[in-house]
Amino acid sequence: MKLATLRTCGNGTTAALALGVDGYLPLPALNVGELLARSGWKALAAAALAQAEALGGEAAGVVPAHEADLAPLLPTAGKVICCGLNYADHIQEMGRELPEYPTLFAKYADTLIGATDTIEVYGSDRVDWEAELAVVVGAQLTRAGEHEAEAAIAGYTVANDVSMRDWQNRTLQWFQGKAFDATTPLGPVLVTADEFPAGHGFAVSGRVNGELVQHGNTATLVFGPAKLLSYISQFTTLRPGDVVLTGTPGGVGMGMNPPRFLADGDILSTEIGGIGRLENRVRIRQGANAAR
Amino acid sequence: MKLATLRTCGNGTTAALALGVDGYLPLPALNVGELLARSGWKALAAAALAQAEALGGEAAGVVPAHEADLAPLLPTAGKVICCGLNYADHIQEMGRELPEYPTLFAKYADTLIGATDTIEVYGSDRVDWEAELAVVVGAQLTRAGEHEAEAAIAGYTVANDVSMRDWQNRTLQWFQGKAFDATTPLGPVLVTADEFPAGHGFAVSGRVNGELVQHGNTATLVFGPAKLLSYISQFTTLRPGDVVLTGTPGGVGMGMNPPRFLADGDILSTEIGGIGRLENRVRIRQGANAAR
Repeated sequence: MKLATLRTCGNGTTAALALGVDGYLPLPALNVGELLARSGWKALAAAALAQAEALGGEAAGVVPAHEADLAPLLPTAGKVICCGLNYADHIQEMGRELPEYPTLFAKYADTLIGATDTIEVYGSDRVDWEAELAVVVGAQLTRAGEHEAEAAIAGYTVANDVSMRDWQNRTLQWFQGKAFDATTPLGPVLVTADEFPAGHGFAVSGRVNGELVQHGNTATLVFGPAKLLSYISQFTTLRPGDVVLTGTPGGVGMGMNPPRFLADGDILSTEIGGIGRLENRVRIRQGANAAR
Repeated sequence: MKLATLRTCGNGTTAALALGVDGYLPLPALNVGELLARSGWKALAAAALAQAEALGGEAAGVVPAHEADLAPLLPTAGKVICCGLNYADHIQEMGRELPEYPTLFAKYADTLIGATDTIEVYGSDRVDWEAELAVVVGAQLTRAGEHEAEAAIAGYTVANDVSMRDWQNRTLQWFQGKAFDATTPLGPVLVTADEFPAGHGFAVSGRVNGELVQHGNTATLVFGPAKLLSYISQFTTLRPGDVVLTGTPGGVGMGMNPPRFLADGDILSTEIGGIGRLENRVRIRQGANAAR
């Protein structure tokens, strides 16, 4: 099952079931996060689909794919927690030790945008990419073990943890370079966990103007999805619609020689096999106030 | 004007006007954050007070001080952003340079507890204190200058950024040691900005079982309240009910020789002159799952 959040007229949003090339069937929830918070959401989606098939797509309100306006998948996520330094092959090729604990930092939902929205950055000239698998929480987790965490994964989606390296490296804490409003595309769809075998390795890739700059496979993650959710839940409760970004493979612009950053007008594409692709234009704006 | 958030029967909360020794007058908002999001909230509070004075306290539903159950001041804060390394005198006594940019990190509202609630920590044995002035946002700020930010300060309150140093220092990012659920007391009241002269220096102190361990004055902050709000608003929008913790003066347990941490049963007191005092018992629990 594939789920999306669509913008509706008048600034609203709706959760929807993605029907492939046929479009999107709206579901009775404001967004995918709100849908996941309902018990029996899979049955609800299946019933809506059966009804739509009986009625015919148009009568059921199916939105044709070319008319769909994708909102951030989880526009009201309570927690957007990110893991850094998590691809073992990349860590080892840099000659570093594998970490004992995950490096974690937080974002707010204001960072999130839709799968084809423009990334508008104000006041940074070192805008970098980080293609990532995102894990969406489907059940409440408090001090959960790994098995409980695994069972609580609603599904997977695609994110790009676009990072303002100048701001990120102003101090030791990365937060300010990672928390720019409306710079983290998330989507296009959540694919439910039951569509993948346990321990599935996802192929993650990032492109700038069509050129492949990042590729990796989540099979090499030091801390996989269930381990991350279990670890985080030891200190803070995770709830349906929360999302955890699992880190990025090698190939970010900061690590290139010379370093390379996104320019105004660039197209950033982020793709995960079996899930889908984000494609976002980058606009670099002057900051209104330096405040430095 | 002093505002609080009180717990009501049945798991609810209400914003309230603090009347000093006479108690609290409930206001028609679920908490102080929701109150601040309404235009004309000061007039609303003043009108409620005038009506209560006309009716008499009991008829107006005033909650006697000894019956009041203080909730976290801002239980649904969208953003809880903290500044580290901000007291110039403490930085200089450590022989360090004053920072050019504020060190910022994020928490979620799940960290917050009320002014007399118990701090329950699961799975850490290096629980440390950080007494702090907290600045509450009263108007939306996006890429705001300092004057606009100053005018948008709703008021000030008291926080203790209780920190799990073992988790904080597992990796370079502090988040995991700062984001434990229900460990950051916030309150007891918001005192509106108009009760203090511009640039007022607040005396901040922290005590463990009555012993003074921290004291400082916000007059020595490198980045004062307006500067912090302006800086943060360059990358993320601040909204009414968001809160910024301004950092802690010297005297934390980790810096003592030998280091000293909170023990099960300790009483942590945090006081700011002109605002009030938090008093929280500490309970240290075993974590349910190591997940390490």
